[in-house]
Amino acid sequence: MSGRFVTVDGGEGAGKTTQMGFMREYLERRGCRVVATREPGGTSLGEEIRALLLGHRDGGMALTAETLLMFAARAEHLERVIRPALAAGYWVLCDRFTDATYAYQGGGRGLSLKRIAVLEEWVQGALRPDLTLLLDLPVATGLARAGKRGVADRFEREDVDFFERVRAIYLERAAHEPDRYRVVDASQSVEVVQAEVETMLAEWLESD
Amino acid sequence: MSGRFVTVDGGEGAGKTTQMGFMREYLERRGCRVVATREPGGTSLGEEIRALLLGHRDGGMALTAETLLMFAARAEHLERVIRPALAAGYWVLCDRFTDATYAYQGGGRGLSLKRIAVLEEWVQGALRPDLTLLLDLPVATGLARAGKRGVADRFEREDVDFFERVRAIYLERAAHEPDRYRVVDASQSVEVVQAEVETMLAEWLESD
Repeated sequence: MSGRFVTVDGGEGAGKTTQMGFMREYLERRGCRVVATREPGGTSLGEEIRALLLGHRDGGMALTAETLLMFAARAEHLERVIRPALAAGYWVLCDRFTDATYAYQGGGRGLSLKRIAVLEEWVQGALRPDLTLLLDLPVATGLARAGKRGVADRFEREDVDFFERVRAIYLERAAHEPDRYRVVDASQSVEVVQAEVETMLAEWLESD
Repeated sequence: MSGRFVTVDGGEGAGKTTQMGFMREYLERRGCRVVATREPGGTSLGEEIRALLLGHRDGGMALTAETLLMFAARAEHLERVIRPALAAGYWVLCDRFTDATYAYQGGGRGLSLKRIAVLEEWVQGALRPDLTLLLDLPVATGLARAGKRGVADRFEREDVDFFERVRAIYLERAAHEPDRYRVVDASQSVEVVQAEVETMLAEWLESD
């Protein structure tokens, strides 16, 4: 079986890390070789850029600079990790990808989606995920969960309205591209979410 | 007199720093308020990005990532320093700008100039320098001068062919936009270069 590019996205506290671990195990049981990675980050340069992006910085940074940093980390990640792994037949399982840029920099911060699309094309060419799992849950539920994890980073400190706009963009994108997206209600218990993710993956593997 | 955006560019060892200092003094004697700055850098975020770009990194970085980092630093620089200074009537004197991206990432490393133009438009909109001083000199002369300055950064370690391609792009751009560029032969003594820069500036101020 050749490689596929699978991304997992969603708001704060959606349980991405837990479900990523489960998906990796499930795919490996099915005989897939899996590379699990994350954005922003995924390479040594990307992790340094991640530190710039998430760090607490007086006065923040220009939204254009933030978005270009996201895509710089993504460009390195694509060239060093994602494209070589796919070419070698691995499944790439990525914690956040360009959908998050549309949701956070676009929906959350108000950068035009058309300008994001210009950079998406510049960096990715025609490459898009084969499958995107959107772990969706109400903002208040997600923030309550994320709040238990300790000190908030520069994104986690945003207000509820910001995260409502993030969620709205994720849901719009999923509705607009139903072939690529699978939406799972992440407000359910971990076990129920995991069972739904397993069913979704099994069906997707059958149809792929 | 309202602000103008003046950039100084050129290859290694061209004497940009020395001539920037002279230009600043000259403009201030003429009553201009001057902000002197540099790229990559010019802001705290930009200096952190500069460190990523110039640092010695095993295996380098993807050319696309390098170019996006350059433009991320530039976006921050434009929003935090250059545009506010111009709006307040300052002259902005900038050590390297987008011409350097065309020369180094385009000419030197081979990224298509059209792709650079997409990012230039994305980040700058219609903003271009009012005047660009190109300090031009033969590659061997420049490298011999730069070699005296100590440990080479990631760009200074490139080979002679790389810098020939960088120089060729600078000269092409200057030939293509004669209204914006002034080319000074930087292989001459510092005093002669300074005298030519003074004459050039005086004439440009008259005609502006």
